[in-house]
Amino acid sequence: MRDFYPEDMVLRNRIFDAWRSAATASGFEPYDACVVESLELLKRKAGEEIVNQIYAFQDKSGRDIALRAEMTPTLARMVAARQGSLRMPVKWYTIAQCFRYERMTRGRKREHYQLNLDIVGEESVAGEAEVLYTAIAALRAMGVPDEAYKVRLSNRALLSELLLSLHVEEKFHAGAFIALDKKGKIPREEIEQILREEGLTDEACAAAFNLMDIRTLEEAEQIAGADSPAIRRIRELFDLLECYGIRDQAVFDISVVRGLSYYTGIVFEAFDTKGEFRAIFGGGRYDNLLTAVGGKPASAVGLGFGDVVIGEIIQALQLPDVRPQQEKILVGYMHDEQRAAATRLTAHLRGEGRIADLRLRPQKPKAFFSLASETATAAVFIGPDDVASGKARLKDLAARTERDIPLV
Amino acid sequence: MRDFYPEDMVLRNRIFDAWRSAATASGFEPYDACVVESLELLKRKAGEEIVNQIYAFQDKSGRDIALRAEMTPTLARMVAARQGSLRMPVKWYTIAQCFRYERMTRGRKREHYQLNLDIVGEESVAGEAEVLYTAIAALRAMGVPDEAYKVRLSNRALLSELLLSLHVEEKFHAGAFIALDKKGKIPREEIEQILREEGLTDEACAAAFNLMDIRTLEEAEQIAGADSPAIRRIRELFDLLECYGIRDQAVFDISVVRGLSYYTGIVFEAFDTKGEFRAIFGGGRYDNLLTAVGGKPASAVGLGFGDVVIGEIIQALQLPDVRPQQEKILVGYMHDEQRAAATRLTAHLRGEGRIADLRLRPQKPKAFFSLASETATAAVFIGPDDVASGKARLKDLAARTERDIPLV
Repeated sequence: MRDFYPEDMVLRNRIFDAWRSAATASGFEPYDACVVESLELLKRKAGEEIVNQIYAFQDKSGRDIALRAEMTPTLARMVAARQGSLRMPVKWYTIAQCFRYERMTRGRKREHYQLNLDIVGEESVAGEAEVLYTAIAALRAMGVPDEAYKVRLSNRALLSELLLSLHVEEKFHAGAFIALDKKGKIPREEIEQILREEGLTDEACAAAFNLMDIRTLEEAEQIAGADSPAIRRIRELFDLLECYGIRDQAVFDISVVRGLSYYTGIVFEAFDTKGEFRAIFGGGRYDNLLTAVGGKPASAVGLGFGDVVIGEIIQALQLPDVRPQQEKILVGYMHDEQRAAATRLTAHLRGEGRIADLRLRPQKPKAFFSLASETATAAVFIGPDDVASGKARLKDLAARTERDIPLV
Repeated sequence: MRDFYPEDMVLRNRIFDAWRSAATASGFEPYDACVVESLELLKRKAGEEIVNQIYAFQDKSGRDIALRAEMTPTLARMVAARQGSLRMPVKWYTIAQCFRYERMTRGRKREHYQLNLDIVGEESVAGEAEVLYTAIAALRAMGVPDEAYKVRLSNRALLSELLLSLHVEEKFHAGAFIALDKKGKIPREEIEQILREEGLTDEACAAAFNLMDIRTLEEAEQIAGADSPAIRRIRELFDLLECYGIRDQAVFDISVVRGLSYYTGIVFEAFDTKGEFRAIFGGGRYDNLLTAVGGKPASAVGLGFGDVVIGEIIQALQLPDVRPQQEKILVGYMHDEQRAAATRLTAHLRGEGRIADLRLRPQKPKAFFSLASETATAAVFIGPDDVASGKARLKDLAARTERDIPLV
């Protein structure tokens, strides 16, 4: 579990501020829910992989509760509860802390924060385009250059079409997705073993595995056919990304499947260009989650964007700070006799909407200005003469200018 | 546990934004830590009352962990861990979610958010003044009028002096504080019973109880003596509050003791003027907490300000909104053929730093403008003629004006 000291909050605020401003600029509305959820809800929709990682426990009255591992089940629960009265499409965002009980590695911690963007109730690929645009706008707001990452995208519906063309029955597809998602992560033999357990013949198994070697949409089209709805959808998405000015950020990559079982259509993951880190963000379309939590059918698209990987990338790239330095005035005084004047001035400056930090005890000028140069952009130091004259000097520490300000 | 729908986030953001802006304006630095803490840390410093309310559980490896009930033990842990390198005084704030396992009543929920302001390493009463000023600045930023609340303040050191003058030994004082804090909450007989169990004689017991009837600082001075350091400290605080322009917000009230065992000096609680709600915020000076968590001695003052009570008060007072309405442009289009133009325009507007929400499917003008009037401040609707002419009309929905903007 992480502690955030003020020095750590600089990076965290850079990420959170960019998330918030990009989501707001795109018209997403904020929502939130408690980090404690019912274990049953989390289990009902998560893939097997996640269930084993849920931070579950019992409360004092014996109820099974858990710290959420992801936000999507909670989102689905909240939308389903008010599906009759909410204006569709729902277009919501949150920054949610999520927990996973797993071995800690680079890019993975027991807890992390995650921007969640979801659009519920809109079937068209305009939903995918809108969440992708917003995540990329957030990366740009953080100062991450476009060359630093790519969004790899595919369509589970395409994989389904391809499996059907290989005579793999639809009922085996969900299991095949989970297995194929593991390509490159576990040995080929183990994946084939899983596929066989899912009911695939040896032949279908090998064919399914070879699908992962498709490199271009054109190659996929040769198998799926020129009229493939899944490919048309991918092309439509690329056209929209062009309109958004982010077409070059995205590539087709059939190996993107996503580990979670609830995706049904377009899926995507963003990676750093050098391939040194885990996924920056990921998501896709999920059509059956609302009904799984008791709601009416609704097509939805979602995106999760964690703070850990992007934080590591920002630090590795040594990106310059993006936030304009805020004015911060340090106010100090020489003797107890000037404390009242320093306090009144500080309250006056704050009342004007300025940031003013007050030294809480008398200080020598040298020590005061040494501290000011490290912690502030401007400084006022009040001595006996200042109180007598009714004014003090406000020094701009960067510009090395100063001007009189009246004591109040 | 609470869900926050977008409509609920309006009030929550009003509170959180005011907390953040007031803390920042006063030069407090942000920090944060995980909501999961070691149970042992939380127990080591909390009063008995809180220990029974801690949301405790075991993780999968059998460690005793808990959802924090308050932030102060975590703050003390973090400061103690870096006490040698941190610049003193530490002046930090956080907005922390806290959990208490207790019966839910008005103003009390199983979880709430709490602004925490702490200053560690400054003994003078300037610390108390600074946290009180900042909490009041936050109330003002929320639009809460000064007449709506009062800060009641006292000094546990004064109560100690008074108990000593009644020949109650110092070792009984902590127990006496806890008991006296319950005045008005449980019957007098029960409090006297607790005091007797704490070792007070019947006589001392009655005397201690009567201390709670002291109404003014002058009355207290008659018992404690004219040279009482505790009273001098209260007067000094009032003088500083005068300098901050918040003197009228505070009154002396000897009955303010605070339930937590770690306070050692000035203590305070803010209540609505009509006395209809629980405390808005509370806090005080704690001098022994750093050593309790393994740190070096350091005097500290802290303040906790929850979101539940102030939210109820803002709603009960029906205070007008304080946030200026942000411009929000709704972009729509008539047919699929105008989707690209609408998407490009939306990305362009967002790139200019404006908030632009895009309709994700074609719409009739009437339905579009009806929605825009409910959800936006401005609107652009793109039809075939607009694409042909290369420009569209941006309508300001409040001013009922419009102007051409080029399509991109």
